[in-house]
Amino acid sequence: MEMLNKVCEGLELIKRRNPLVHHITNYVSVNDCANITLTIGASPVMSDAIEDIEDLIKISNALVLNIGTLNKRTIESMIFLGKEANKINIPIVLDPVGAGATKLRTETALKILEEIKIDVLRGNMSEIKSLLGVSSNTKGVDSTEKMDGAEDIASLAANRFSCVIGISGEVDVISDGKEIYKVSNGHSILTKVTGTGCMVTSLIGSFLGAGCEPLTACVSSYTVMGICGEEAYKKVGNNIGTFKVKLFDELFNLDETKIKEGGKIEKC
Amino acid sequence: MEMLNKVCEGLELIKRRNPLVHHITNYVSVNDCANITLTIGASPVMSDAIEDIEDLIKISNALVLNIGTLNKRTIESMIFLGKEANKINIPIVLDPVGAGATKLRTETALKILEEIKIDVLRGNMSEIKSLLGVSSNTKGVDSTEKMDGAEDIASLAANRFSCVIGISGEVDVISDGKEIYKVSNGHSILTKVTGTGCMVTSLIGSFLGAGCEPLTACVSSYTVMGICGEEAYKKVGNNIGTFKVKLFDELFNLDETKIKEGGKIEKC
Amino acid sequence: MEMLNKVCEGLELIKRRNPLVHHITNYVSVNDCANITLTIGASPVMSDAIEDIEDLIKISNALVLNIGTLNKRTIESMIFLGKEANKINIPIVLDPVGAGATKLRTETALKILEEIKIDVLRGNMSEIKSLLGVSSNTKGVDSTEKMDGAEDIASLAANRFSCVIGISGEVDVISDGKEIYKVSNGHSILTKVTGTGCMVTSLIGSFLGAGCEPLTACVSSYTVMGICGEEAYKKVGNNIGTFKVKLFDELFNLDETKIKEGGKIEKC
Repeated sequence: MEMLNKVCEGLELIKRRNPLVHHITNYVSVNDCANITLTIGASPVMSDAIEDIEDLIKISNALVLNIGTLNKRTIESMIFLGKEANKINIPIVLDPVGAGATKLRTETALKILEEIKIDVLRGNMSEIKSLLGVSSNTKGVDSTEKMDGAEDIASLAANRFSCVIGISGEVDVISDGKEIYKVSNGHSILTKVTGTGCMVTSLIGSFLGAGCEPLTACVSSYTVMGICGEEAYKKVGNNIGTFKVKLFDELFNLDETKIKEGGKIEKC
Repeated sequence: MEMLNKVCEGLELIKRRNPLVHHITNYVSVNDCANITLTIGASPVMSDAIEDIEDLIKISNALVLNIGTLNKRTIESMIFLGKEANKINIPIVLDPVGAGATKLRTETALKILEEIKIDVLRGNMSEIKSLLGVSSNTKGVDSTEKMDGAEDIASLAANRFSCVIGISGEVDVISDGKEIYKVSNGHSILTKVTGTGCMVTSLIGSFLGAGCEPLTACVSSYTVMGICGEEAYKKVGNNIGTFKVKLFDELFNLDETKIKEGGKIEKC
Repeated sequence: MEMLNKVCEGLELIKRRNPLVHHITNYVSVNDCANITLTIGASPVMSDAIEDIEDLIKISNALVLNIGTLNKRTIESMIFLGKEANKINIPIVLDPVGAGATKLRTETALKILEEIKIDVLRGNMSEIKSLLGVSSNTKGVDSTEKMDGAEDIASLAANRFSCVIGISGEVDVISDGKEIYKVSNGHSILTKVTGTGCMVTSLIGSFLGAGCEPLTACVSSYTVMGICGEEAYKKVGNNIGTFKVKLFDELFNLDETKIKEGGKIEKC
């Protein structure tokens, strides 16, 4: 299948090009985001000081904006750096953590989407719906939303925000407004580790930084994370601490064969 | 024994109700606090921006205030959010990390205790003594204090601050000012992992959020952490990295049988 | 060999004296830095609030300054605390993360080196060269620089900044401006875990805090980290998640025999 080939190519590109992925992200999962970026073969850099990031973006290949623990200072930095990235065509992925849960989060994500050209917007159903102004249920930063209608929501959001949308769920739904992909890899235990969504976002940054198209980057990230989650679970079962450790082992050793055999990507 | 039954009920309640536990906490152990909260069956949310937290507390079931890496901005947020939580009867646990080690920490903890109704105050012997104005030895954020007289100190503090007190030590001492409980579960290797105290505080937040009484929440958290520490040590021995990972595995799979067989709670 | 004996003595001293190591460090690897400090037998304390740190430094035995996620507020705190530490003769190790990558990082590191007496400066080749004003290649916070001429650069920097220099690389090069040591322990997989450089810096703080000379502290930290990296890799192979966990296990159980058998220190 064509998309599975693209996932393999993308992984190969990351390892060859070793893109630098700049992050303005939250302080909860930041260490895992740095490690997942290294694990897949890219290089992470984390900095949120406006005096510091102007120089860093010039040597970066992609930008991750994650509003997980936003505040006035880092919001300013995100807006500033997003615009700088746009000027020099650095691709951007936005993770609107907790949009819908607070006015500040919803408004910040919308402001970023309005003022900055975003390539991929990845969130859960609650977050994406709240950005569309569609009523939704949210519980802090975790979604309690069912995935009914995710394809329509993804499509709608892709057209509204002119970017690729990734909606995380039991089946992940990805759309660029024209095509829709579904990735059914993964395991529910992934939702019991904090920051797995953020980690997918960092993977998207890695694929984007390696030169992949946004749609490919998003589908690929869900696919590799999902396959590794399945494999890790097979090996360690219901042991949440060991599972998280094993997830990194699996991603570090992921290869073409495992992707082609294990990838469950469906084009709708 | 009655309290062991309450621990089991509390754990069951957390898993059933999946309470949302808001944290304003330090950036050292924040990831472990989020993961321990998920591991026991609750949901963590971390945010310290005053513009953000007013909305979050309304959907939260408990509040954790941890002054581990406090600064002017986050102190303001803690005071503000504590008052908001009080208005809508959200239970609060305070972890006065490093009280006694610096004037700022002692004064901040005392200010919180004065201006906000706290349900549980959990710290080590140095911290609790310093809040009582009793001379103590502290070494940064780790206690060097012996546990002599912990029962009296817990009782005294409970009456002074009108809340349940948990004092961590080889034997943990818990008091609401009337009753005193001792939990002798645990293993000394737990003190070689950073943030295990903070993690107990997050567990207290989880039990409180599920609807447990403060005394039960505090005793339960020490008991489950202690049992899991013992079990993890039995399985992996003196391997500090693996031990930390295993601790999460044990908590994720903790059940009534293990609590009833392993819990060492004594009512004084 | 004399230096190997000093490494063993240093480790012994840390375990006996349990020094308190104050950190102003980045939010990416801070948890690992705290845990590595505990693992080797010292005690970490992390705080960057100017109102808080003045008290903490008085009870600390060493200070770690790490500019990994610097901002205006924390730069001020570092300058302030460095001066306070100098007044009371607390030894300091500086990690100039990303110097050369941004003007702010280069200037901040140089300002610290100018205004504060630093005992050990530890970085990669790009960072140290950029501080010397020698042209270099940098890629965010990771070095892309070859180690050619590292001995001269270490020597030059030691004399320029009047402190011990540690340059991390396949072979680590350490100099106090007179003597040069090389440590060829380690494994390339260490570069695939975020923050291993920061962790070495925290180890240097631990050795300094125990009373070791700066040259010994720096050589010792590279040696113990390198040996543990080799041992961990031997046991778990190419499994990056498990490798990181095992690294802590190895350090926790490191003893004189392993250091004497495994240490590869060369005096040039």
